[in-house]
Amino acid sequence: MSDNGSQASNEQVIGEQPLSGEPAARVLVAGASGFTGALAAQIVWQHPRLQLVAATSRSDAGTRLDALYPRYRVPLQLTELDLDEDPNGIDAAIVAYPHGAAAPTVAALRAAGVLVVDLSADFRLRDADTYERWYGEHGAPDLFGSGVYGLTELYREQLREAKLVATPGCYPTASVLGLAPLAERGLLTDVVVNAMQGVSGAGRGGGDAMHYAAMDENAYAYKTEGHRHRPEIEQELAALGSPAPVVFVPHLLPLDQGELASCYAQTSEPISKDEVQALYRERYRDEPFVRVVERPPGLRDLRDTNECHIYVTVEERGRVLAFSAIDNLWKGASGQGVQNLNLMLGLDETEGLR
Amino acid sequence: MSDNGSQASNEQVIGEQPLSGEPAARVLVAGASGFTGALAAQIVWQHPRLQLVAATSRSDAGTRLDALYPRYRVPLQLTELDLDEDPNGIDAAIVAYPHGAAAPTVAALRAAGVLVVDLSADFRLRDADTYERWYGEHGAPDLFGSGVYGLTELYREQLREAKLVATPGCYPTASVLGLAPLAERGLLTDVVVNAMQGVSGAGRGGGDAMHYAAMDENAYAYKTEGHRHRPEIEQELAALGSPAPVVFVPHLLPLDQGELASCYAQTSEPISKDEVQALYRERYRDEPFVRVVERPPGLRDLRDTNECHIYVTVEERGRVLAFSAIDNLWKGASGQGVQNLNLMLGLDETEGLR
Amino acid sequence: MSDNGSQASNEQVIGEQPLSGEPAARVLVAGASGFTGALAAQIVWQHPRLQLVAATSRSDAGTRLDALYPRYRVPLQLTELDLDEDPNGIDAAIVAYPHGAAAPTVAALRAAGVLVVDLSADFRLRDADTYERWYGEHGAPDLFGSGVYGLTELYREQLREAKLVATPGCYPTASVLGLAPLAERGLLTDVVVNAMQGVSGAGRGGGDAMHYAAMDENAYAYKTEGHRHRPEIEQELAALGSPAPVVFVPHLLPLDQGELASCYAQTSEPISKDEVQALYRERYRDEPFVRVVERPPGLRDLRDTNECHIYVTVEERGRVLAFSAIDNLWKGASGQGVQNLNLMLGLDETEGLR
Amino acid sequence: MSDNGSQASNEQVIGEQPLSGEPAARVLVAGASGFTGALAAQIVWQHPRLQLVAATSRSDAGTRLDALYPRYRVPLQLTELDLDEDPNGIDAAIVAYPHGAAAPTVAALRAAGVLVVDLSADFRLRDADTYERWYGEHGAPDLFGSGVYGLTELYREQLREAKLVATPGCYPTASVLGLAPLAERGLLTDVVVNAMQGVSGAGRGGGDAMHYAAMDENAYAYKTEGHRHRPEIEQELAALGSPAPVVFVPHLLPLDQGELASCYAQTSEPISKDEVQALYRERYRDEPFVRVVERPPGLRDLRDTNECHIYVTVEERGRVLAFSAIDNLWKGASGQGVQNLNLMLGLDETEGLR
Repeated sequence: MSDNGSQASNEQVIGEQPLSGEPAARVLVAGASGFTGALAAQIVWQHPRLQLVAATSRSDAGTRLDALYPRYRVPLQLTELDLDEDPNGIDAAIVAYPHGAAAPTVAALRAAGVLVVDLSADFRLRDADTYERWYGEHGAPDLFGSGVYGLTELYREQLREAKLVATPGCYPTASVLGLAPLAERGLLTDVVVNAMQGVSGAGRGGGDAMHYAAMDENAYAYKTEGHRHRPEIEQELAALGSPAPVVFVPHLLPLDQGELASCYAQTSEPISKDEVQALYRERYRDEPFVRVVERPPGLRDLRDTNECHIYVTVEERGRVLAFSAIDNLWKGASGQGVQNLNLMLGLDETEGLR
Repeated sequence: MSDNGSQASNEQVIGEQPLSGEPAARVLVAGASGFTGALAAQIVWQHPRLQLVAATSRSDAGTRLDALYPRYRVPLQLTELDLDEDPNGIDAAIVAYPHGAAAPTVAALRAAGVLVVDLSADFRLRDADTYERWYGEHGAPDLFGSGVYGLTELYREQLREAKLVATPGCYPTASVLGLAPLAERGLLTDVVVNAMQGVSGAGRGGGDAMHYAAMDENAYAYKTEGHRHRPEIEQELAALGSPAPVVFVPHLLPLDQGELASCYAQTSEPISKDEVQALYRERYRDEPFVRVVERPPGLRDLRDTNECHIYVTVEERGRVLAFSAIDNLWKGASGQGVQNLNLMLGLDETEGLR
Repeated sequence: MSDNGSQASNEQVIGEQPLSGEPAARVLVAGASGFTGALAAQIVWQHPRLQLVAATSRSDAGTRLDALYPRYRVPLQLTELDLDEDPNGIDAAIVAYPHGAAAPTVAALRAAGVLVVDLSADFRLRDADTYERWYGEHGAPDLFGSGVYGLTELYREQLREAKLVATPGCYPTASVLGLAPLAERGLLTDVVVNAMQGVSGAGRGGGDAMHYAAMDENAYAYKTEGHRHRPEIEQELAALGSPAPVVFVPHLLPLDQGELASCYAQTSEPISKDEVQALYRERYRDEPFVRVVERPPGLRDLRDTNECHIYVTVEERGRVLAFSAIDNLWKGASGQGVQNLNLMLGLDETEGLR
Repeated sequence: MSDNGSQASNEQVIGEQPLSGEPAARVLVAGASGFTGALAAQIVWQHPRLQLVAATSRSDAGTRLDALYPRYRVPLQLTELDLDEDPNGIDAAIVAYPHGAAAPTVAALRAAGVLVVDLSADFRLRDADTYERWYGEHGAPDLFGSGVYGLTELYREQLREAKLVATPGCYPTASVLGLAPLAERGLLTDVVVNAMQGVSGAGRGGGDAMHYAAMDENAYAYKTEGHRHRPEIEQELAALGSPAPVVFVPHLLPLDQGELASCYAQTSEPISKDEVQALYRERYRDEPFVRVVERPPGLRDLRDTNECHIYVTVEERGRVLAFSAIDNLWKGASGQGVQNLNLMLGLDETEGLR
C-alpha cells in the first residue's frame, strides 16, 4: 500500500511459516493486494494449522506482499491466479474480490473441489432480484443461493458442513449481531441503524476521497439514498424472526480500522433495561468473540481483534439502543472469514485469531 | 492550552486591536480560558466594531491568552473577574462559564446594565422543573426564563431587542436547524438524532478520556441513558409546531472541531425528496450562515466557519433524513454568540464572522 | 478533492467576488485543481483587490472548484487553459503546475505580457546544470534564470519590479528563513536540516502512499539519498553569504497542513543564546509574516496562515538550533505567491493574506 | 485511561491466565496504571511462562485494569503496593514508576530477593554527578551503578546473570541501536539525533498539552535546551567505542505509539553506502527483533511490536544517515523489559513478545 514503508531484505525473512505440525489445509488467498485480502493472507500466514500456499493479485503480481503492506509480515511474492493450474495443491481458498467479480472465480474453485470462503457480497443475498437490483447480473447464477451465510454466531452448525461460505461485510456483521437477540424473539418492529466506519472500509481504491488530506478532520454520511447492505440486514433480521423495516445510513470517520453500528430499535412490547441486558448476556454467554459490555464500546478497544463488543440499553422513551462495535477488517471481513474456515475444517473456531 | 506552542515575544504583539473607527460596544469575555471563551475573545478581538476590554479567567489569571492558545492571536493578559469594579466601562459581556456556574455572574452583569450573551445552558430551558432535573438548583431564579433563546435563525427579531441571550450549544443548534423546516409545518411525529462531535466539544477539562492517546483511532457513544440536550431540542421543536418525542444520542469522534447531527424523522404525512429539498431551500434562502447543500456535508468543509450545512433527503421507506453540520465552537457556541451580539447591538449579523 | 463534500446548490453561491472597488489586476490561476492551485484561487477570490477571472485545470475542466474543494468557497467552473485566447483580459497569472511542466506555460504567458507568479521549481535555480540534474531538460531555456526568487523577506525590492517570480516551495522557505540571519553574517559552516511536513505537501496525486489508511499513525523519512531542494537551499544560503554544505532530509507526518524545519547549524565562531535570539529579533523586527517566538513553534499555531514562526537557541555543545514552522500551502506556496503578487502590483504585501 | 471504553462484565472475563504449564516466575508489575506499566501487565498476562500475581497503583488502586485500559485484557483489580507483605510469592518485578520515584521501591524489592526490571532512568546512568544534575538526589545510592543496562542487543550476556536491570527508554533505545554498528568500530565523531515520538511517550499525566485538541494537527520540538537522554546516549556510544558528542532534540508527533530517531553521523573515515549497509546487516544478522530494512522505516510498520527497524545510508556529502524506528511502548519500554526478564529467567528472549 505504501512505497515508503520498510521492506525486509530478502535474506532475512523469506522462510518457513511458523506452523505447528501438519497443516489442516493448504490455503490460497485470491485478491491479496486489497485491504481485506492482505489481512487474510497475514492471518493465514500466522495460523498454526493453515499453510498459505499462494497469495494472488492481478494488479500487483510480482510484488512481495510485505513490500506492499510492510505492517504485515508475509514474505511471499504475489502471483497471478491461474485456475487452469492443477488445483490439487489447494484445499481451501479465501476470495477477496470486489462485489460482482468474485462469483466466476468462486465457481471455478468450487468446480475443482476447493472449499471457498468468499468475502464479497456475491453469495450473501438469497433473493435473486434483490441481488440484481443492487449489484447487477450475477456471475455464477448456478451457485446463487448455495452458500452458507457466514455470520458465525448465527449459522455455526451449517458452517461446519459448508463448502461455500458468503462472509458478511462489516455493516451487516455489526448491525445484525447488535440486534440478533431482539430479532430472535420477534420483538423488532422498526429499526434505525446509524453506522460509522473507518477509511479502511472504503478499500484501497478509494481515490481522491480517501487521500489523507481529504479525510483528515472530516466525517460525513454517504449513500444516503439507499445502501445495498440494507436489504442484507433486513434479510437476516427476518430470518431470525423479525421482518422489520430497517433504515440504514453509513458514515465515514477519520480513523483507520473500526466500525460502530448505533442501533435504535422499536420493540413490539416494552422491555426494561435489565431485561434486555440479561437477554443479551444470555444470548452471547458462550460466544468466544462477542462480549456484552457495560458501557458503550470504543472502537479503539477492539482494534486488531476479531471481537464484537455490544452495549444495550433502553432510553427514556422506551426505545432499545444497541451499540455494536467491531474491527471492520477483522470481524467485519478477514477475521470472520478465517473463523468460518476453521469451522469448515473442523478446527477450533478461535484458532489463529487470538 | 499548550505550554509548548509558540508564544509571541512581548514587544511584537501587544498592541491595538485592528478596529475600524469607533467601536459599537466595549465587550468583556468571562471565562476566556476555556475553549469557547478563548474563541469568543479571538472573534471579538478581530471584530471591526467590538472592543475587547477584558478577558477573564479564574484558573489562568495572569497568563496571556496567546500563551495559553497560541493558535489565536489575542495579546491580552487574563484577569480575574471583579464584579464590584465599576462596570461603566463595559457595554456587553459574553459569558463562557460551565452550566450552573454562569447564572450568578449573568445576574450581576445584568444588574449593572450590561448586555449579556450567555453560552451556558442556564437560561435555555423554559421549564424550571426540567432545568432542575438536569442541572440542579438554578443560580439566579429571578432571571430564569427571561432570556431570549439564541438560535439566531429562529429568534432573530426577539434577539434585536434582547438584553440577555441564552445561546444554544452545538447539539441543539445542529439538530434544531436540521429539523426546523419540518417542525414549523407541524410535520414531525418521531425523531432520532444520532449526533457526532469532535473532542473540542468536551471542553478543556476532559481529563484522561481526552488524552490524545485515549481518543486517537477511537469513537463511541456516551450519555446513552439520557442527555440534557434532549429536552432542549424537544422544547424548540415543540415551540416551532411539532411537539414530537426525540431520541438523542451523542458520540465522540477523533477530530477537533465539528459536529454532525444525523436526523431520522418520521412525518405525519408523506413528503417527497423534491418537496422536502424545496422546503428547506425556501426556508433558508436568505440565511447568511445556513446553506442547503446537494450532498451530505463533510465536517471539514465548514471547519472554522460560522456556517451550518444541511442536506435533506427521503430514504426508501419514506423516512426523512437530515444531515446538519456545524463547527461546534463557532456556530455551536462562540460564533453564534457574536452573531447574536451583533443583532443586539444593531450591527450587521455577519460582522466579524466571515 | 472529495466527491462527498457539500456542494452548494447553483442558485446560492454563483455570484460576484467581494471586491472593494476597482481591482488592481485580473488574475488567472493555472492548475487550480491541485492543492496549491486551489488555495491560490481561494485566496485570490477573497482578495479585496484581485479579480479571479479564470481557474484552469486539464484533469478537472468542467467541474466547479467548490465541488472539488468544498472547504474553499470558489463558485467557479474549472476550464481548460487556452493560450491562444486573447490574453488581454488577464493581467497576472499564478501557475501551479508540476515541476518541469510549468516552464512552457510560463513562457507563453510572459510572451503575452502577463505578470507571472510561478509556484513550480522551474525558475528557482540559477545554475542550469543543477536544474538539469534534478529536473531534466528545461522547458523554456530562454527564460531560465530570468525570474526573481520569491522568498519575499529576502528579495522584496527586486520583487517590486519583477515580471516573473519563482516562488520557493515549503522546504526552502522554512529552511532559509530559519537560517537567514546567520547566513547573512557569513556564520554558517555546516548545516543539518531535518524537515517534517504534512501530507498536503505531497500533493493531490500521491497515490496509495497518501491513502488515509497508509499515513494514519505513520511517519517516515523519504528521499534520503538526495533531495532536489538541497541545492536550492544551498544556493540561497550562499547568496546570503554562507556557502555552507547542507544535509537535508524530509519526513512525512500524519497531519494535513504544516511544515517544520529543525535546523542544526555549526557556526564559524561561537554565539550565545542571547546574541542569536537578539540577532533574529532584529532581523525580522519589521516583517509582517515572520515571528521570532519564545518557544519551539507548534504547527497548529500557524495553520491556515501565511506566517513563519522561528525559535532559535544554542544547545549545550554550542550548536545553534533554529526551528522554523510554516503552513506549507500558505507561506510555503500559495500564500507567499500572493504576497509576491501584491508587491509586483504595488499593493500592500499583506493584502488578502490576514 | 478512559471512562468511556467498554468494560467487561464481571462474570465474563475474570479468570485464569492462559499459562502453558508451570510458570517460570511469579511477576509483580508496580505502577500498572501508567502507559508503560499497563502494557507490561498486559504482556505478562499473555506470556505463556510468566504468572501475573499483582498489578499495583497508588492513584488507581481498587479499579480493574481492564476498566482503566479496555484495549488491554487484564481482568485484575489494581492494588496498592505493600512492601511489608511477605514477598515470598513474588519472583520478579517490573517497576514502572516515574524517574526518581523508582529507586526506593527497587531497593526494597532487591532486598527481598526479588529480580527487578526497572523501566525508569534511576539505574541507567553510571556517573553519579550526571544523574544528580538531571534527576536530583538518588533514592537508593547504595544500589547506584549496580544494575545492568537493559539494551538487550548490547548487554545480552550480562543480562542473563543480572538481578537488577535498568531498561532504557525509547529515545536511547532507538538512537543507540541506530548508531551501535558505527560506534563499535570507533567511527563516530559527531552525531545529531533528531528524534520524533508519539504522544504515548509523554505518559498519562501530560495535562493540557496532551489534550486531543492540543496535539491534533500539531508537531513541535521540546526540551531544546538540553534533554536528559543526551548524556545517556553519549554514555552508551562511548562504552561501545565512540566517545562522540551528541546533539539530541526530541519532537512530539500527532500519533499514539511510535518513535523515529533520524541520526546524522559524521565518521572519522569515509564509508560507502554499500559498506555501511553490509556492516549493519552483519551486526544485526542474528537479532530476533532488529531488522535492517531497505527503505526508511515507517512507524506504522512496527506499531504494537517489539521490533526495531533500521535503514542506513550515506548522503551526498558523506554523512551517514541512520533511521531507527521502534514502538516507544514496546521496544522502548515494556516489551524490552520483558525481553530482559526472559533472559534473566533463562527463557527464550522472544517468549511472549511475538
